[in-house]
Amino acid sequence: MSDYRGYEGDSLQFLKSNNISVSDSVKILADITYSGIIMPRYEHSDDKHIVLKLKSGYNIGLEIEKIKGIEKIKSTEKDNQQHEKVEKVSGLPKILLLSTGGTIASKIDYRTGAVTPVLTAEELNSSVPELAKMASIDAEVLLSEYSENITPEHWLQIAEKINDYSKSDYSGIIIAHGTDTMHYTSSFLSFALAGFPIPIVLVGSQRSSDRASSDAALNLIGATKFIIESNTKGVFVVMHQDENDDTLACHIGTRVRKNHTSKRGAFQTIGDNPAFIITENQIQKNISEDVFKINEFQSKIKIDTRVALVKYYPGYNPKLLDHIIEMGYRGIIFEGTGLGHIGNSMYESVKKAKDKGIFLGMTSQCIDGRISMTVYESGRDLLDLGIIPLENMIPEVALVKTMWAMGNFQDAEEIKKIMLENIASELSY
Amino acid sequence: MSDYRGYEGDSLQFLKSNNISVSDSVKILADITYSGIIMPRYEHSDDKHIVLKLKSGYNIGLEIEKIKGIEKIKSTEKDNQQHEKVEKVSGLPKILLLSTGGTIASKIDYRTGAVTPVLTAEELNSSVPELAKMASIDAEVLLSEYSENITPEHWLQIAEKINDYSKSDYSGIIIAHGTDTMHYTSSFLSFALAGFPIPIVLVGSQRSSDRASSDAALNLIGATKFIIESNTKGVFVVMHQDENDDTLACHIGTRVRKNHTSKRGAFQTIGDNPAFIITENQIQKNISEDVFKINEFQSKIKIDTRVALVKYYPGYNPKLLDHIIEMGYRGIIFEGTGLGHIGNSMYESVKKAKDKGIFLGMTSQCIDGRISMTVYESGRDLLDLGIIPLENMIPEVALVKTMWAMGNFQDAEEIKKIMLENIASELSY
Repeated sequence: MSDYRGYEGDSLQFLKSNNISVSDSVKILADITYSGIIMPRYEHSDDKHIVLKLKSGYNIGLEIEKIKGIEKIKSTEKDNQQHEKVEKVSGLPKILLLSTGGTIASKIDYRTGAVTPVLTAEELNSSVPELAKMASIDAEVLLSEYSENITPEHWLQIAEKINDYSKSDYSGIIIAHGTDTMHYTSSFLSFALAGFPIPIVLVGSQRSSDRASSDAALNLIGATKFIIESNTKGVFVVMHQDENDDTLACHIGTRVRKNHTSKRGAFQTIGDNPAFIITENQIQKNISEDVFKINEFQSKIKIDTRVALVKYYPGYNPKLLDHIIEMGYRGIIFEGTGLGHIGNSMYESVKKAKDKGIFLGMTSQCIDGRISMTVYESGRDLLDLGIIPLENMIPEVALVKTMWAMGNFQDAEEIKKIMLENIASELSY
Repeated sequence: MSDYRGYEGDSLQFLKSNNISVSDSVKILADITYSGIIMPRYEHSDDKHIVLKLKSGYNIGLEIEKIKGIEKIKSTEKDNQQHEKVEKVSGLPKILLLSTGGTIASKIDYRTGAVTPVLTAEELNSSVPELAKMASIDAEVLLSEYSENITPEHWLQIAEKINDYSKSDYSGIIIAHGTDTMHYTSSFLSFALAGFPIPIVLVGSQRSSDRASSDAALNLIGATKFIIESNTKGVFVVMHQDENDDTLACHIGTRVRKNHTSKRGAFQTIGDNPAFIITENQIQKNISEDVFKINEFQSKIKIDTRVALVKYYPGYNPKLLDHIIEMGYRGIIFEGTGLGHIGNSMYESVKKAKDKGIFLGMTSQCIDGRISMTVYESGRDLLDLGIIPLENMIPEVALVKTMWAMGNFQDAEEIKKIMLENIASELSY
């Protein structure tokens, strides 16, 4: 049965007349010759182009008007059955791989259009055969969520699962995760599982894992190598450092942010070099031994989501803040301007929040750099109103930390103390 | 009269016993020898340190316990009277300098602690004598606001003022502005005054202008040089490119963001090189001639502030969005995750917003990179719900543009069209 999903009008006509359908491997002669797989199109597309997935992993749109020839090489449907059995090698370090969903764990079924988790142990080993030579990997599908749909409740679920293995014989745990909110999850795990005896490494991919050129395989291999060779603990994110396939960056889970919508090297350590640089031949360490201060592990897997992140901007209506206060929020993290400011139109509402005993923390929408609220008059006013400057904590991390602190500690003074204490390298100097 | 403002306990005792007060120039022997000016301290300080402003412009805290000797060089109070008369040179290009406040326009009066606007023509010329040789500068104090207190109403005021000079003999207009929200103001001016016949250049400083080492003077000189030599129009931000005093960066007013709380090179063009690089000997141009497409100038200086910027995060309560809808907002700009996503818990509220006819735009909290909502199922869902992907528009710029579009255009379809039209290089390809 031929599949022309998403194609309409001229482009549909073009495919039909050439006896080509979605998922076919083709060679196309246009300005130059392209080889790749015909991709399904989505709604809101025009009918003047067909979309080709190149071997590089990139999709390109080709204008049908400019196509001089198209030749079918083969249908790729057969590929779906090509899962080779991989023999486990004995004596290798053991690693647990938990999949939560996202691009890295997804595979497009060209026939149904559905995105399905691929990471059964079997499928994983066959798709990244290098792994089986490095480690003995047990894989488990924990969630199948795009990361924009990951919630704090999922964080708890992931942390509880990891916590079950605090006394296992695993050398480390890899979490395959969608990239959109991976840094929020890594922050939560950093706080909830501070001092966990083995490394926890989140990996994602910016290109889907069903192509040889995807970053998924390399990021997985890098995470595995890191666990085996780095001799460290803590929560990390391992992703490409840049577009280059030779170098991966390993970021501290509380100092990392997704800073580009699509590049492979989207993840960056804010204000510093990545903690480790992973290349084929070595792991270069950029952090000191005592980065993770908590050595005695005691899990703290609770959360209170009544914390809001408020990004200030000119024209921000203080009534929006009043509403947050009235809704019973227990914490508010401001994403202020510059060194940690919000307009004086906000002062009255901030006072209301303080009177209600709400924890008020200040971070900066500059993202990089340290809060300093004693330089200008307005900062000093805000200090007087009871806002706590959260040093150089990344706004998103401050949000997660406050949710975590509220869940695990009750006393307001204790929460304030914890917020300024460096639990998992979320503050750097 | 001696001034010990902010000093208490031990540190106050130390100053008094050495006959030193705030604003005195001193030489201090500790681990090494320091020369500088004793700064006032602020509330929330301890009493174990004194603060010294070094000639480099940096403040350092010195522990009194470790001070081996302190020597008064002179009192700097006399400096306040040192305004030299500067003769205007005839035949130079004319530039209008409008001051709105902020660090660049401020000077700490050590005796009163007040921060005062310094930019009368006289004072400015005497503090930056190089300017008088380059241009004939008319200076005017328009506002005296720290930029965190700048509101959309101020934007209108600034734009109206500039608009008065659309047919003047000025070669360009410089706006001295606080750095915290300078990029919001530059965005508004870019839209409201698109096609303005002469360049409009915003400058700020990260260090107060009362020190020779401040970046204020260099940024002003750079802006002046740029106006005289660049032969361009448009709205720009001129600031240090990095810590280096030799190189300034000139950014397109809609592509720039403050990305560090304190560094001189805090302002960066997102996803590209700065439009111009300004060094003493040349101005290097990195943009093509047709960056500012609107050539016929017609000011559009209206605004509707009923636009909210909503940053999505895991745990975001959709009721917060419901409240924005109920408050009568006309536009919502989402700062989504990754390629432009928000969690599916938001869909119901988004539908409500759409049903009410609210304009819904998508940007990314990644800040860099382009929105692409056809890659994943969730993005396609959001497109179906009527959210408009705003390409690679910076979230803050999208907010300002929507406020501006709502103020100047009425019809929903027209607003949507304008939002996707490249008015002032806010979209780049």
